Amino acid sequence: MAVVDVTIVPVGTASPSLSEYVAGCLEVLQGAAGITYQLTPMSTVIEGELGRVLEVIALMHEQPFSRGAGRVVTTIRIDDRRDKKLTAAGKVAAVQARLGKK
Amino acid sequence: MAVVDVTIVPVGTASPSLSEYVAGCLEVLQGAAGITYQLTPMSTVIEGELGRVLEVIALMHEQPFSRGAGRVVTTIRIDDRRDKKLTAAGKVAAVQARLGKK
Amino acid sequence: MAVVDVTIVPVGTASPSLSEYVAGCLEVLQGAAGITYQLTPMSTVIEGELGRVLEVIALMHEQPFSRGAGRVVTTIRIDDRRDKKLTAAGKVAAVQARLGKK
Amino acid sequence: MAVVDVTIVPVGTASPSLSEYVAGCLEVLQGAAGITYQLTPMSTVIEGELGRVLEVIALMHEQPFSRGAGRVVTTIRIDDRRDKKLTAAGKVAAVQARLGKK
Repeated sequence: MAVVDVTIVPVGTASPSLSEYVAGCLEVLQGAAGITYQLTPMSTVIEGELGRVLEVIALMHEQPFSRGAGRVVTTIRIDDRRDKKLTAAGKVAAVQARLGKK
Repeated sequence: MAVVDVTIVPVGTASPSLSEYVAGCLEVLQGAAGITYQLTPMSTVIEGELGRVLEVIALMHEQPFSRGAGRVVTTIRIDDRRDKKLTAAGKVAAVQARLGKK
Repeated sequence: MAVVDVTIVPVGTASPSLSEYVAGCLEVLQGAAGITYQLTPMSTVIEGELGRVLEVIALMHEQPFSRGAGRVVTTIRIDDRRDKKLTAAGKVAAVQARLGKK
Repeated sequence: MAVVDVTIVPVGTASPSLSEYVAGCLEVLQGAAGITYQLTPMSTVIEGELGRVLEVIALMHEQPFSRGAGRVVTTIRIDDRRDKKLTAAGKVAAVQARLGKK
């Protein structure tokens, strides 16, 4: 299981508003098996088996083209830990536990 | 006002666990005037006047060195919109409103 | 054809030196069909059909684990332009042409 | 001395072509004291004292706004190593030396 975040930015969209495009990408996630996700202010965090997550992101990356974009810049960050189970919730909890101790 | 996210990864820490270092970086934010922030599974989102946010991130970047790290890789993503007010909460709400319509 | 850059950072290595790991990732590229690549100071730039590039990056991402790393943070940036042919060399040349005009 | 790379993407431009904006950002670098830089296909690599590099990047980030952009997404990656001198050329050379050995 990997924790991944993704940003998908269409370029040359005339308007600086991107929420329509981001919503289109999230619709791909709503129907996707084998992953969980959460929207944050700067990216979408996706959790699942790495191969499956990358498969889903490849579909998300197509979305802005299907809405007319001519160019898309996508950034994927993979956090893959194999010495112990890594989860999105566990990562946040581990930091908060350390902050709480002080 | 800009919305920014930051990841700070110390390299050569012997252990793959980074929560101690992330907590150290968040302590910088806890005491910082002029910004708001939230911890997400893949980064910390900071909101504020851009110059002030970068000043605070420069302090965060020093934290792992003060705990003994010899090398730190920091990634900063700035979303700066000036044709209308941009907020972290507003970005998420705009996408959710579009998803709700369908 | 997409232009992509990738950074692969093993976490929890004993030393801050990563060149051994980066070299391992580049060996994957040396043998890979259907792509071209160049090493830069901050990332490796890969050019090719997007699905093929992502396939190769998935193999690169496995490399540090095979050398004993317990955690790997990989960042992939995809620049995908479909209204005209995009190449790594063409991107740099377009900027230099504009600078030369002035 | 840190090695940093930066990408500056204006959002909501009429055209998917960004070379005009990238050239504007590079003009800032041409006149900047205390840093060296190189253009690569996916980012601009800047080398110098970290505070100075961030100062220069803040100026680069203003460039697309001065050309009419309403929104700019800037990504900064900092590689800061303090146990030994880090240079852009040295990073590439270290990897090539390892590849050459095999």
